[in-house]
Amino acid sequence: MPLQTTDTRTPAPLRAPRGLAGVVVADTELGDVRGEEGFYHYRQYSAVELARTRTFEEVWHLVLHGDLPDGEQLADFTARTAALRHLPEAVGQALPALARAGAGSGPLAGLRTALSLVGAAAGTRPLYDSDPASRRADALAVCAMVPTLLTALHRLGEGLTPVAPREDLSHAANYLYMLTGEEPDPAHARAVEQYLIAAVDHGFNASTFTGRVIASTGADLVACLCGAIGALSGPLHGGAPSRALQALDAIGTPERTDDWIRAQLAGGERLMGFGHAVYRTEDPRSRLLKEVADGFGGPLVDFARHVEERAEALLAELKPGRELHINVEFYAGVVMELCGLPRAMFTPTFCVARTVGWSANILEQAQDAKIIRPSARYVGPPAPQPVPR
Amino acid sequence: MPLQTTDTRTPAPLRAPRGLAGVVVADTELGDVRGEEGFYHYRQYSAVELARTRTFEEVWHLVLHGDLPDGEQLADFTARTAALRHLPEAVGQALPALARAGAGSGPLAGLRTALSLVGAAAGTRPLYDSDPASRRADALAVCAMVPTLLTALHRLGEGLTPVAPREDLSHAANYLYMLTGEEPDPAHARAVEQYLIAAVDHGFNASTFTGRVIASTGADLVACLCGAIGALSGPLHGGAPSRALQALDAIGTPERTDDWIRAQLAGGERLMGFGHAVYRTEDPRSRLLKEVADGFGGPLVDFARHVEERAEALLAELKPGRELHINVEFYAGVVMELCGLPRAMFTPTFCVARTVGWSANILEQAQDAKIIRPSARYVGPPAPQPVPR
Repeated sequence: MPLQTTDTRTPAPLRAPRGLAGVVVADTELGDVRGEEGFYHYRQYSAVELARTRTFEEVWHLVLHGDLPDGEQLADFTARTAALRHLPEAVGQALPALARAGAGSGPLAGLRTALSLVGAAAGTRPLYDSDPASRRADALAVCAMVPTLLTALHRLGEGLTPVAPREDLSHAANYLYMLTGEEPDPAHARAVEQYLIAAVDHGFNASTFTGRVIASTGADLVACLCGAIGALSGPLHGGAPSRALQALDAIGTPERTDDWIRAQLAGGERLMGFGHAVYRTEDPRSRLLKEVADGFGGPLVDFARHVEERAEALLAELKPGRELHINVEFYAGVVMELCGLPRAMFTPTFCVARTVGWSANILEQAQDAKIIRPSARYVGPPAPQPVPR
Repeated sequence: MPLQTTDTRTPAPLRAPRGLAGVVVADTELGDVRGEEGFYHYRQYSAVELARTRTFEEVWHLVLHGDLPDGEQLADFTARTAALRHLPEAVGQALPALARAGAGSGPLAGLRTALSLVGAAAGTRPLYDSDPASRRADALAVCAMVPTLLTALHRLGEGLTPVAPREDLSHAANYLYMLTGEEPDPAHARAVEQYLIAAVDHGFNASTFTGRVIASTGADLVACLCGAIGALSGPLHGGAPSRALQALDAIGTPERTDDWIRAQLAGGERLMGFGHAVYRTEDPRSRLLKEVADGFGGPLVDFARHVEERAEALLAELKPGRELHINVEFYAGVVMELCGLPRAMFTPTFCVARTVGWSANILEQAQDAKIIRPSARYVGPPAPQPVPR
C-alpha cells in the first residue's frame, strides 16, 4: 500500500491509513497474531498449546519474564504473586465509597477507578526513571491485585462483604473463590484458567496500543493500565463475551436459529460472536474454548454448537466471501456461563487475563525512551483569520 | 521520508518512523501547530491572539462548538457551564476517602481517580452510540467540574475543607476562588485565564493522541480523559511548569546564572524550560506569557528575563545549531507563581485548560467509527517452538 506524502512541510509528513491499519508502530518480542493462519503466540510458543498444557502462573511468568519457569522459579513466582493479592489498607477502606458512587456503571469503570486509586496510593514512580526490576515488581503487584479489586467491587455492588484472597489457591481458583466465597470445583477453575491463558495478549489492539502510547511518556504502570481499561470499555473494541450469549438467549430454542439469524442479517445487524479484525479463519481461541466447552457437554453446549454451525452456513450463503467465522467471544461466554460466572463478570474476567498482557507491553514500550507523538492534517478554514472584535 | 515495507504479509505492512514522528494519523478541524513558524491556532484563529483578546469561556465555546459565541450565546454558555461546576453528591462524599488513600501521590493521579469516579457515577454511556449533542453536553460537564475536583483534592490534602464553586465568577476566577476561599485579584484571575487559553490545545501530542485512540473504540468521554491524564503524567510529556521554576530556585541569584547553566550543560543535563518537540523558534506561548509576566514586573520577572537571555546566549555558544529556545513551561511557571498558585497546582492548572482541548479532540475522533489498531513486528525467536513438557 503506498503512503501518500502530503503538502510542503518539512520533514514531509507521511499519511497513515485510517485507524493505522497495517502500520507497524513497534518491534515486539512478546508474540504475534497471524491472522491468515489462524495462529497466535506468546513469546515463541503457541498460546493455545500453552492454554492446553500450562497453568496461568506459568504463562504469566513467560509473558512477563520471557521464559517458562522451572520448578523452583514457579514455586517462587506463585508464592510471591499470591502474597500480592491483598489490597493496600487505604484502598480497601475506600472501595465501599467507590462502589456506592459508581453503582449502576459498568464494572470496567469501577476497575479503572479502583486501579487508579491503587496507583495514587502507591505514589507516582515514573516507569521511565525506574529500573526494569522495579517495573516488573509493580506489574506483578497490579496483576495480582486486579481479581481482588474486581470481586470486591462486584460483591459490594450486590450488598455482600468482599472475600479476602487465599494464598493457597491458584490465581484462577482464588478469583472464583473471592467471587463466591466458596472454593470452586476444580474443573471450573481449570476451564476459567484456560480461558484466562488464552486471553492474556493479542497483538496491538486498541487497548494494548493505548497502554503503549501512555508508557511512551514514561508514565507509571497504573496510568497506562487505566487508559487501556478505558479503551477496552469501548463497544468497538470487543472483549465482551456476554454479547454473544445474549444472542443465544434471543434465539431461545434451536428450531428458531435459522429464522433469527436470517432476520438479523436482513436487518443489517452484526452477529455478535462472529467476525474479527485480524482473523480470516476460525479464531484459534474459539477452537480452544470449544474444546473446553465440549469437556462439560450439556444442552447449552449443544445449542451453541448448533447456532455456530447454522451461522457459519448462513453467513457463507448470505455474505459470500466475507469470511465471517466464530470469534473468541462466542465460546468464552459459553464457558464462563458453564463455570457459574455471573454475566456482569465476563468482561472483568477478560481484564484479569489481559492486565498481564497489557503490563508486558507497557514494560516493553517503556524501554524505548521515544515518546509517541504523531501528526495531524489541519483541514479547517485557512488560518490565521483576524479575531473579530 | 520513505516508508520501509517489511516482509511478506498481506496487505504489506508499512513501517512507521519511531514514535510515529511526522506521521499524519487524522484530519482535524480543531487547529494546528506550525513549528517552523512559531505559530499555533485554534480553529482559524491565532491562539495567542485569542488569549490576548478573549475570555476562557469564549475560547472554550470556539474550540468545542466551532465558532466564537455572540453575546447571547456567550451568556447562555457561561450560565450553563457555571451551573455544571458542582460535583455529583456521591462523588463529593467519596473525595475524602480518595484524598486519604492517594495522599502523597501527584495531583494528576488524584484527578485521574476522581474523574474516573465521575464517569462511573454517570454510568457508561458509550460515545459512539450517542448523538453529538449529548457528547458535547458530557464534555461541558466534565470540563466545568475539573477545577472543582482539583481544588477539592488539593484542599483535602492540606487538611482544609473544599470550597463550593461560585456561579457568579468566571471559570478562571472561580478556580482561584475554590483554591483559596477568597475572591481573587482581577489581575491574577486574568493572567491565569490567559495562561489557560494558551494551554487549551496543541496538536497531536501524546496525551491528546491517547484520548483519540481510546475514543476510536467508542468508549465514553471520561474513559478517554483518564487515559489522556495518565499520558500527561509521564516525565517525557512536558506540561510541568514547576520544573522550570525549580531551575530559577537552583540558580538562586542573577550572578550565578552563567556558572549554573554552564555546569548543567557540561554535565549533559537538560535545561528545563528550554527546547520543544515541534517549535524551532521561540514557543509562541512563552512570548505571550512573557508579556503577561511583564505586566506584573518585579524581581522574579527581572530574574527570569536575565536567565532566559543568558541561557539563549550560552545555548547558542555551546550547542550551536540546536535551536533550543525557551518553551511554554518557563514563563508559565513565573506567571503562576506571581498569581499565588501553589507549585503543586501548576500541572493541575494546565489540566484545567487542556481538558477542553482533549474533549474537543475526543469528540472529533468519535465521529470516525474506525478503531485505531496498528500492527507490530515480531522480533523474538521463531514461533511456534514446541511447548516443553
